[in-house]
Amino acid sequence: MGAVDERLAELGLVLPPVAAPAGSYLPALRSGSLVFTAGQLPFVDGRLPSTGKVGEGHGLVAPADAQALAATCVLNGLAAAATVLDSLDDVVRVVKVTGFVASDPGFSGQPGVVNGASELLAEIFGEAGRHARSAVGVAVLPLDSPVEVELVLEVR
Amino acid sequence: MGAVDERLAELGLVLPPVAAPAGSYLPALRSGSLVFTAGQLPFVDGRLPSTGKVGEGHGLVAPADAQALAATCVLNGLAAAATVLDSLDDVVRVVKVTGFVASDPGFSGQPGVVNGASELLAEIFGEAGRHARSAVGVAVLPLDSPVEVELVLEVR
Amino acid sequence: MGAVDERLAELGLVLPPVAAPAGSYLPALRSGSLVFTAGQLPFVDGRLPSTGKVGEGHGLVAPADAQALAATCVLNGLAAAATVLDSLDDVVRVVKVTGFVASDPGFSGQPGVVNGASELLAEIFGEAGRHARSAVGVAVLPLDSPVEVELVLEVR
Repeated sequence: MGAVDERLAELGLVLPPVAAPAGSYLPALRSGSLVFTAGQLPFVDGRLPSTGKVGEGHGLVAPADAQALAATCVLNGLAAAATVLDSLDDVVRVVKVTGFVASDPGFSGQPGVVNGASELLAEIFGEAGRHARSAVGVAVLPLDSPVEVELVLEVR
Repeated sequence: MGAVDERLAELGLVLPPVAAPAGSYLPALRSGSLVFTAGQLPFVDGRLPSTGKVGEGHGLVAPADAQALAATCVLNGLAAAATVLDSLDDVVRVVKVTGFVASDPGFSGQPGVVNGASELLAEIFGEAGRHARSAVGVAVLPLDSPVEVELVLEVR
Repeated sequence: MGAVDERLAELGLVLPPVAAPAGSYLPALRSGSLVFTAGQLPFVDGRLPSTGKVGEGHGLVAPADAQALAATCVLNGLAAAATVLDSLDDVVRVVKVTGFVASDPGFSGQPGVVNGASELLAEIFGEAGRHARSAVGVAVLPLDSPVEVELVLEVR
């Protein structure tokens, strides 16, 4: 059991099975020392726990819920990355996180939502989990997912 | 004639002239072993075959049409990449595709649209054409284009 | 004083202090020969000069104003990059610019807005400032910022 797997266990987390891509692409790919994951949706056991736009108000996905979904995206992204690595212990550092948040036009709290991804990466990888990041509010995401997160990792 | 050009001919495709950038930037650029293309619009002979948002319903661009436009973006992207390569035979593999779909808020079929890009890359490059991918639904794209696709390629 | 700093001074520009990240991430990070900046908002002295969606019409941020904000994002991005470099003179070239424009659905002039970023990079770095670029119109950006720009730089 690798150090990252142990750390996940300490956090009460288990790497999920790799989510089937929603189209004709790979879950992750290595080029040189970088691993690029596909944009990850917050699938749990093959389904999205919730759908819709994030915002404050009736019929919207609450920001705190979306933050938890962003963390789920990270777990799926690490599972994807693991398919092209011997072990997640080969991750030298997290380089870049891009978080897309399907947003009600009046909602501008995307950074808080994407913190769900960023903070989990820091919990798992420590200092090596800190990364550059963009958070963006988009009109709508695949399958009406509230969030989508892609990762770029530096690996050995 | 290179192998990729022959494959394009087999598919009945011709690499178009490079679309003039819509702003102050380069169609593509090489850094180390990676080529980054600019975001490609589905120009054909200098104009967009259609404009507007993708979705189901009157006044919207039909998803099947948008899928074909995403394939056109790929051709334009390969033409852009060719400007910084001796030949497209120098492409080792497609690394990353990002597909932006100008989406009606009720449309969540972005993966199907961006499959138009992914499937053409697989047809042209075979296994080397398979890639990590993000598909995102955005509010509006430059010149009211229904789709925009950017490519990252690994080259020799 | 480095050559880039001198060039900035000639242009009447000063590198601002690094904007505090709006979440749990780093302003910029180096991996190999690439520097990735976080998505930059157009902060000036810790606040956004304007907020809202870009477009033509009452209550919208005028495209010309948004273009100036995109240039401010670049200054903040260079300040972020400088935190992981000895000097901005270590920038070999600008590789990739991604410009997100919070857009009124009827506004499709994103390339003109993001030219504010691209043209400033060319003014500062000359030929080495020319880059591949994507411009995208999104629903809403963090803190209701009208624009967000991220940079990928090749460094020595």
